[in-house]
Amino acid sequence: MRIKYPNGREFNQPTQPSKKKPVNFANRGMTFEAEINQTNQYYLDRNIAVIHKKPTPVQIVKVDYPKRSAAVIKEAYFKEASTTDYNGIYKGRYIDFEAKETKNKTSFPLSNFHQHQITHMENCLNQQGIVFVLMSFSTNKSYFLVPAELIIDYWNKQQQNGRKSIPLEAINTHGYEIIPGYAPRIPYLSILDQHFLKGD
Amino acid sequence: MRIKYPNGREFNQPTQPSKKKPVNFANRGMTFEAEINQTNQYYLDRNIAVIHKKPTPVQIVKVDYPKRSAAVIKEAYFKEASTTDYNGIYKGRYIDFEAKETKNKTSFPLSNFHQHQITHMENCLNQQGIVFVLMSFSTNKSYFLVPAELIIDYWNKQQQNGRKSIPLEAINTHGYEIIPGYAPRIPYLSILDQHFLKGD
Repeated sequence: MRIKYPNGREFNQPTQPSKKKPVNFANRGMTFEAEINQTNQYYLDRNIAVIHKKPTPVQIVKVDYPKRSAAVIKEAYFKEASTTDYNGIYKGRYIDFEAKETKNKTSFPLSNFHQHQITHMENCLNQQGIVFVLMSFSTNKSYFLVPAELIIDYWNKQQQNGRKSIPLEAINTHGYEIIPGYAPRIPYLSILDQHFLKGD
Repeated sequence: MRIKYPNGREFNQPTQPSKKKPVNFANRGMTFEAEINQTNQYYLDRNIAVIHKKPTPVQIVKVDYPKRSAAVIKEAYFKEASTTDYNGIYKGRYIDFEAKETKNKTSFPLSNFHQHQITHMENCLNQQGIVFVLMSFSTNKSYFLVPAELIIDYWNKQQQNGRKSIPLEAINTHGYEIIPGYAPRIPYLSILDQHFLKGD
């Protein structure tokens, strides 16, 4: 059965309601990533900031060099990143952040981070960088810029207090909600202007 | 025939002088890269600076997910980088650089760069970043820190004047020689202290 929508798009409705959608791990957060990339491109095109996503770290094992064509990687493995995914420069300041998405409604799971990233954020803070996490609560459709200090604090305390996530309440109190726009989609630099660069 | 040097190192002298060594493109610059990585690790371990090499950009086409083991990338291609290879933070300042090696003795070929990198360096300079190229003249065994401005200048003029390389003389005049050490191997941050961060 096909439903035709007013805007011309078609939608294949399943004949039976699916009980549980399969989770596609590969696409997790892809949409949020695309939103941030669009935002960074917007800032770059207007000479506002230079912020890029780092390539996915890959351990290359085997490469073929066919004659008269480009080298083909035939065997490689995903590696754990030793830093956060995004960095760059804005108004002379070093910017460093990670972008993470959750389907949770009331808290953000710490399992989204690993020790390397936490250590990297601490190191950048020690060098006076501006370090944060952009969070997307995809079910709530809300976005936050959360200073790295809050993440590091909850990360370091999880061994003692057993808490495996950051409550939305704490994120609301110590972070800053980002109201999404059309262009740029996730205007996180406005938050920096208001709360991190006041004296500049 | 083996020559034993006073410091204990041995040197295998070829029985016949080789006419021309085969050029190994895959390993080009690998040693220089390792030297810079060691240097960055030295700075990181001592909380002096946080500077990382970005992963090699790869376009992933096909991934296998074998049961009970890690995902294997089965088809991927090398992509052209849209930025320089290294960036990070030092004393609150954004640092951005590219590392390049040449076997030439008297000039540095501009073919080592591509337009994306030049544009990226210009963008970072506009945001008040500290941007440069670390050059290794492997035949001369000499190293230079060359401000991005010199590279950009020669790059932009090559269409007019047809000059495809930067003469060593210009590099000597506008750049700074780095005397390699044991640890860190390529102490480029000392150059920044002396010539870029005087007022800080």
